[in-house]
Amino acid sequence: HAAGNRMTRELAFIERLRALATHPAARGLRDDCAVLDLGAETLILTHDMLVEGIHYLPDADRADVAWELVATNLSDLAAKGAEPLGVLLGHMLGPDDADFLRGLEEVLGHYNVPLLGGDTTSGGPPRADGLTAIGRATFRPVPSRSGARPGDAIYLTGPLGGAMLGFEALRDGTGEDSTAYRRPRARLTEGQALAPHVTAMMDVSDGLLLDAARMARASGVTMALDAASVPLACPPARLSAAMRWGDDYELLFTAPAETALPVPVFRVGTVLEQADTPLLLDGVPLSEKDGLGYEHG
Amino acid sequence: HAAGNRMTRELAFIERLRALATHPAARGLRDDCAVLDLGAETLILTHDMLVEGIHYLPDADRADVAWELVATNLSDLAAKGAEPLGVLLGHMLGPDDADFLRGLEEVLGHYNVPLLGGDTTSGGPPRADGLTAIGRATFRPVPSRSGARPGDAIYLTGPLGGAMLGFEALRDGTGEDSTAYRRPRARLTEGQALAPHVTAMMDVSDGLLLDAARMARASGVTMALDAASVPLACPPARLSAAMRWGDDYELLFTAPAETALPVPVFRVGTVLEQADTPLLLDGVPLSEKDGLGYEHG
Repeated sequence: HAAGNRMTRELAFIERLRALATHPAARGLRDDCAVLDLGAETLILTHDMLVEGIHYLPDADRADVAWELVATNLSDLAAKGAEPLGVLLGHMLGPDDADFLRGLEEVLGHYNVPLLGGDTTSGGPPRADGLTAIGRATFRPVPSRSGARPGDAIYLTGPLGGAMLGFEALRDGTGEDSTAYRRPRARLTEGQALAPHVTAMMDVSDGLLLDAARMARASGVTMALDAASVPLACPPARLSAAMRWGDDYELLFTAPAETALPVPVFRVGTVLEQADTPLLLDGVPLSEKDGLGYEHG
Repeated sequence: HAAGNRMTRELAFIERLRALATHPAARGLRDDCAVLDLGAETLILTHDMLVEGIHYLPDADRADVAWELVATNLSDLAAKGAEPLGVLLGHMLGPDDADFLRGLEEVLGHYNVPLLGGDTTSGGPPRADGLTAIGRATFRPVPSRSGARPGDAIYLTGPLGGAMLGFEALRDGTGEDSTAYRRPRARLTEGQALAPHVTAMMDVSDGLLLDAARMARASGVTMALDAASVPLACPPARLSAAMRWGDDYELLFTAPAETALPVPVFRVGTVLEQADTPLLLDGVPLSEKDGLGYEHG
C-alpha cells in the first residue's frame, strides 16, 4: 500500500500548505495557477516539476522532457487566458544535457517565450527539473475552475486520445507517430480567445473525466457528459480509455449555451445543478472512486 | 576528476542557456535575478534549487532546509532592492514533511511573504526542492552587479563569519548557537533602503572574495579590499576563512564614496580601474584561481 500511503501523505501535505496559502492570489492552491494583481496588470504564475522515474522513464529522450516541462506549464497559463512573459528553469545537470537543450530551444522557439533565469545543480539520479512560467492576464476576471453554472454548455477545444496512441506507439516501438505524446501543445491562442467568454476553464492534464469532476467540485455543480460527442483522435473503440487519459492538454471549459465562441470547439455536455456525484456520463453517476483518470505521482 | 568534469559540464550548459536567454530581462543569466518590466511595474524573479546530499546533508533538519530555500531566494530579491510578492514551491514529499512545513511556515511568517502556489511530487532520494521568488522593484534602475565604478566605495551591510561558526557548532555538536548558519537572513529592508544609492549590489552567498571578484568582472573594474576593515562575527584569527565562506548573505555593494547611506554599513574597500586581477586584498592581486570562496554544487 505504498502508493496509498503516499497519496495520503501528499493530500495531508497539500492541506497543510493550504493553511499557509491564505493570500487570495493563491486561490487556495485549488487552481492551476496563482493569479496576482500587480498595478494595472494581473500576473499568472505556475510551477511544475518533472522527476525521472516518476513523470518519465530514465531512458526518455531528454529533448521531449524539456518540451513537456515547458509546454505543460504553458498549458496552465493557457487555461487562464494568459500571455506568457517568460520561464525560469531549475535543472539538474546530466550527461544528456545536449538533448535537453535542444528540446528546450525547440519549445521556447515554438511558443516564442523567453528563458529569463533559473538555476543549475548537480544531483540525482533521479534527476528533477522545475519550471516556473510567468504570464499576464489578457482578460479579467481571470477564468477559474470554479465558475461553471447550471445550464452552461461544456466544451473541449479538440480531440482526445492522440497522446494515448502516441504513448503506445513509443512503448511498443511500432514506428507510428508519437508526437502527440512526446510534444504536447499548449492551447495558448485558444485560451486567450476563449477567456472573455467562459464561465470556467482548465486544461485536461489528467483525463477528461477526472478533470471534469474537479471542475464540478470546484464549481459546486454536476457535469453531465455525452460520451458520443467527445471528439476523438483515436478509434471509437478506445473512447473509454481516451476519456481517462491525460496528456492531451486540450482546454475544458464551460460557457452559456447561447454564447457564440471565437474558435472551433466541441460541445461535450451540459452543466447541471449539483447532484450526488460530480459527473454523469450518459446519465450514469460517476465519482472519483470510479477510476476517472490519472492520479499524478 | 569527477568534480572538474562536472564544473566543465555546468559551465558549458550555462553558456548554451545564455544563447537562449537573449531577452534583456534575463540579464544574460549573469545576475542574481531576472528583471522584467510589466506595465508601470518591474518584476524581479529568481529560482533556486536545494538538493539533498549536494546543498545539505541527508540528516539536516528539514525545517532549516525550508528556511534556507526561502531565505536565500529572498536574499536575491534583497540585492535588487525588491519587495517580495510571493513564492512558488516545488517540493518532493518525504517522511519528514512536518519539519519542512514548520520551517516553511516560520520563514514565510518571518518575512510576511505569501505562498502563492507550486507543485508536490514523489521522487528521490535524493530529494530536491525548488523555489521561485517573485518581487517588485522599489527603485529603478534596478541595481545590478555590473555598475561599480572606479572611485566608488565598497560596503558590506554586516559582519561575516557567523554562518561559519554556526556550521562548525552544528558539525562538532558543541552546543554553541548555530542559528546564523541554519537560519540565514535576507537583508530585504537594507536592500530596499540602499537601492536608490548604490552603483552595484549583490548578496554574499559564496564568500566575500569570490563574490567581489564576480562584481569586479561584471563591472569591468578591480575591487581593492582592506582586510582589516572587514566586519567579523568570528574571532579575528578566522578572518581569512570568513572572507571565503558563503552563507552570511550580507549585501555587498558599491556607492560613490561621498554618498550618505540610510542604514548602518561597513566600508571594506575602494573600486579601482580594471587591473590584471579582479581583486586586490591589502594590495595583493587575487583572482579566482587563488581559491576565493565556495563554488556551488
